[in-house]
Amino acid sequence: MNPDDLKILVHGASGRMGRAVLRLAGERPGLRVVAAVSRSGEILPEAPEVPVLPVARLAEAPACDLVIDFSLPEAFDAALAACLARGAGLVSGTTGLSERQHAALDAAALQVPVLWAANFSAGVAVLHALVRQAAAALPSWDADIVESHHVHKKDAPSGTALTLGEAVVAGRGRAPHYASLRAGDIVGEHLVQFTGQGERLELVHRATNREIFARGALEAASRLARRGPGRYDFGQLLLADGRI
Amino acid sequence: MNPDDLKILVHGASGRMGRAVLRLAGERPGLRVVAAVSRSGEILPEAPEVPVLPVARLAEAPACDLVIDFSLPEAFDAALAACLARGAGLVSGTTGLSERQHAALDAAALQVPVLWAANFSAGVAVLHALVRQAAAALPSWDADIVESHHVHKKDAPSGTALTLGEAVVAGRGRAPHYASLRAGDIVGEHLVQFTGQGERLELVHRATNREIFARGALEAASRLARRGPGRYDFGQLLLADGRI
Amino acid sequence: MNPDDLKILVHGASGRMGRAVLRLAGERPGLRVVAAVSRSGEILPEAPEVPVLPVARLAEAPACDLVIDFSLPEAFDAALAACLARGAGLVSGTTGLSERQHAALDAAALQVPVLWAANFSAGVAVLHALVRQAAAALPSWDADIVESHHVHKKDAPSGTALTLGEAVVAGRGRAPHYASLRAGDIVGEHLVQFTGQGERLELVHRATNREIFARGALEAASRLARRGPGRYDFGQLLLADGRI
Amino acid sequence: MNPDDLKILVHGASGRMGRAVLRLAGERPGLRVVAAVSRSGEILPEAPEVPVLPVARLAEAPACDLVIDFSLPEAFDAALAACLARGAGLVSGTTGLSERQHAALDAAALQVPVLWAANFSAGVAVLHALVRQAAAALPSWDADIVESHHVHKKDAPSGTALTLGEAVVAGRGRAPHYASLRAGDIVGEHLVQFTGQGERLELVHRATNREIFARGALEAASRLARRGPGRYDFGQLLLADGRI
Repeated sequence: MNPDDLKILVHGASGRMGRAVLRLAGERPGLRVVAAVSRSGEILPEAPEVPVLPVARLAEAPACDLVIDFSLPEAFDAALAACLARGAGLVSGTTGLSERQHAALDAAALQVPVLWAANFSAGVAVLHALVRQAAAALPSWDADIVESHHVHKKDAPSGTALTLGEAVVAGRGRAPHYASLRAGDIVGEHLVQFTGQGERLELVHRATNREIFARGALEAASRLARRGPGRYDFGQLLLADGRI
Repeated sequence: MNPDDLKILVHGASGRMGRAVLRLAGERPGLRVVAAVSRSGEILPEAPEVPVLPVARLAEAPACDLVIDFSLPEAFDAALAACLARGAGLVSGTTGLSERQHAALDAAALQVPVLWAANFSAGVAVLHALVRQAAAALPSWDADIVESHHVHKKDAPSGTALTLGEAVVAGRGRAPHYASLRAGDIVGEHLVQFTGQGERLELVHRATNREIFARGALEAASRLARRGPGRYDFGQLLLADGRI
Repeated sequence: MNPDDLKILVHGASGRMGRAVLRLAGERPGLRVVAAVSRSGEILPEAPEVPVLPVARLAEAPACDLVIDFSLPEAFDAALAACLARGAGLVSGTTGLSERQHAALDAAALQVPVLWAANFSAGVAVLHALVRQAAAALPSWDADIVESHHVHKKDAPSGTALTLGEAVVAGRGRAPHYASLRAGDIVGEHLVQFTGQGERLELVHRATNREIFARGALEAASRLARRGPGRYDFGQLLLADGRI
Repeated sequence: MNPDDLKILVHGASGRMGRAVLRLAGERPGLRVVAAVSRSGEILPEAPEVPVLPVARLAEAPACDLVIDFSLPEAFDAALAACLARGAGLVSGTTGLSERQHAALDAAALQVPVLWAANFSAGVAVLHALVRQAAAALPSWDADIVESHHVHKKDAPSGTALTLGEAVVAGRGRAPHYASLRAGDIVGEHLVQFTGQGERLELVHRATNREIFARGALEAASRLARRGPGRYDFGQLLLADGRI
């Protein structure tokens, strides 16, 4: 695999995430989408030059280095099988996978590089790693998480806030305090605040559009292409590639 | 050395930092100041029960586990010698040390644990480590540093901002953009901001009083007491002690 | 004019702002776009049900209560004449008007309500009014303006920052200090900070998409519809309509 | 009364606020404390040159332009009587006054300028006025109030947050959403956030030390000295004196 000319197959191409991946892949040097797979197999306006196969004909897809998969649990097994058949890596954000499917990911990781994530924001992935370290380094400081989202979001705290809270617990053994704001059309903001005596550390992530998840999946693909078989975490992949 | 009953010698006890260390040591369980050394040797109001020796009689100071030193370059050599004579660790924030003195610190680190830092804010030390990692993980994002201080601060950017900028460079190889605000009586605030497409990471430290430096020196002492000989960095000591 | 069923004519309908006004007008109860005027006179995809006239046939446009104009200086005179002919109010964001054209606005304001603004963000308009008052109330506090925009923005400080700076000067007679950040794809953020001894007031506006200008023009139209002849300022219109 | 050489009587001089007023009055040009009144009548270390009278001898206090009173309800009546006897204005922050005492303030306001406030932070007073206006100007935007205080503060939301919430209600008729953080030794921070579609206004006050209340009382005294009889609100006094 040539990490400067990655051949990508997009699986689940007609969904919101799949279409965003197709649209943004064109802006990214070093990547080329060689084919897409969707339920209908119709050409997609986001990438009119990309051949699209219907799910049933996935086996006919050309050789590729990596599969980016944002599909459904019932389509996921075929995507994983296609990776193994081609020796291609997998970047997947398909939610709702069963335990069996996660176990299959682990098994596949013995042969190809595999990355599954619930959230492909690069900023959130880095924040998560930083929060864990700050919590561990400053265990006696108070920890608070404040998250803000649009008024249509029903659950509170957000899933991302709870995941950041787990990072706090992993770092210092005690849960943080949460507060949630629901206002306007805020895409998503998370503040993790550590407060000591006379000083304070505020770690904030602000998302201003939803394309960040597709961008993150493409970033994950670029990084994974330089790695051998194994199961990777997005945050660790971002941090470990750095010159630290 | 019993890390739950640390015997501390405060060197440079009549300076601003030394007095703050004496005052705050009393609030901290597990630490005990057994003696202090100052130019005059007069008892200090911050800790009237602590015996104070004049500099010339440092050799008479009782046994201790650690020396906390905020003195002057001309007094520093005696403090370091006292550590070696007692097998005690050293936490020093004395500024203006010569190259020879820094080399002497390295040599002493073969025998006792040694930590020298220009800034003993625990929050700034952690921020520094986080900034380096974030810069390495997100090398294509823009980086900006905004620092705010009181109107009497002459230099800009602040020394801390420049040190954070070095962490950005260490992480991603390119310097950040700096902005400085001088307003009111702001003790010190530093924002390091990483901006990508559609998302942003803001890492902020706010200091609200100047006691944080004395608190940090005491925290460093507690942590150093559990370590063997070697030269330590404050941030790494904070991060590495955590359960990461 | 029935302020709950405003009949609107959009002038300059094929430009970026005109199209956004057409698209968002449909979401807003109490408003109805009865016709649009553009250079070509072609139906616009943002509002396929709205009849579009070419500029030359503006006189044939139906009766309306208000004209929303985002056009060019050379088309502006006709829009103003159309208002006067119909007794309709005018909301205009056309930039580059000559002194003569601004004088014509003043003259028209004797007969119809008229509002021209360079920036139709409701939040910025309110911020401007608040900044002026805060500056006047706290004249001895330090004032700083920090603005952040995407990397493609060339001018610094931004026009909005300079306008906010004028509000500071109007309030307290001295200019603020400015800092500018250019990073990622930030749509636009402005912080006006007043710092005293031991306390601080931060007034912040954050824009996350560019539709706010079209929304603001529609809001201005709704408010202007309840007013008599006169020349109005957007911020004062927002503030004075409130129950203060 | 010469507004550039105000003669001040400090009533309740041995309390925390009274002592802070004495200490800070010396820094302020145009003001002179001519006498102080305390329970014991002992000279106070904050202002060793100021004559101190015991409460029982208040009538012997010299002529003055203004009384600054931070005492107790049982001492308040005498302070008000002293103002009326001297034709002096009153700045009072004594809490727990009865309805009868508030009515007495109103009656006194027919003869002298009178200002009573629960909170003498100039920044909070200005914020309160701005919040009311912003709420009135943007009635359809969501409103949230987030307040942060030290861990020893028991009540939540803070009294100041509730007062700001009343300003929101006064402006737009609907209450805001509240969130409270209790962390470290935070002196006090209040964020009032108005969120629309695609834009947001954040109004923030940060207190970093408790001297701001004494400074505010001195500022109130300076401003009141230029006014005739009447009952004044601190925020309105600050705003109305400006060149708006």
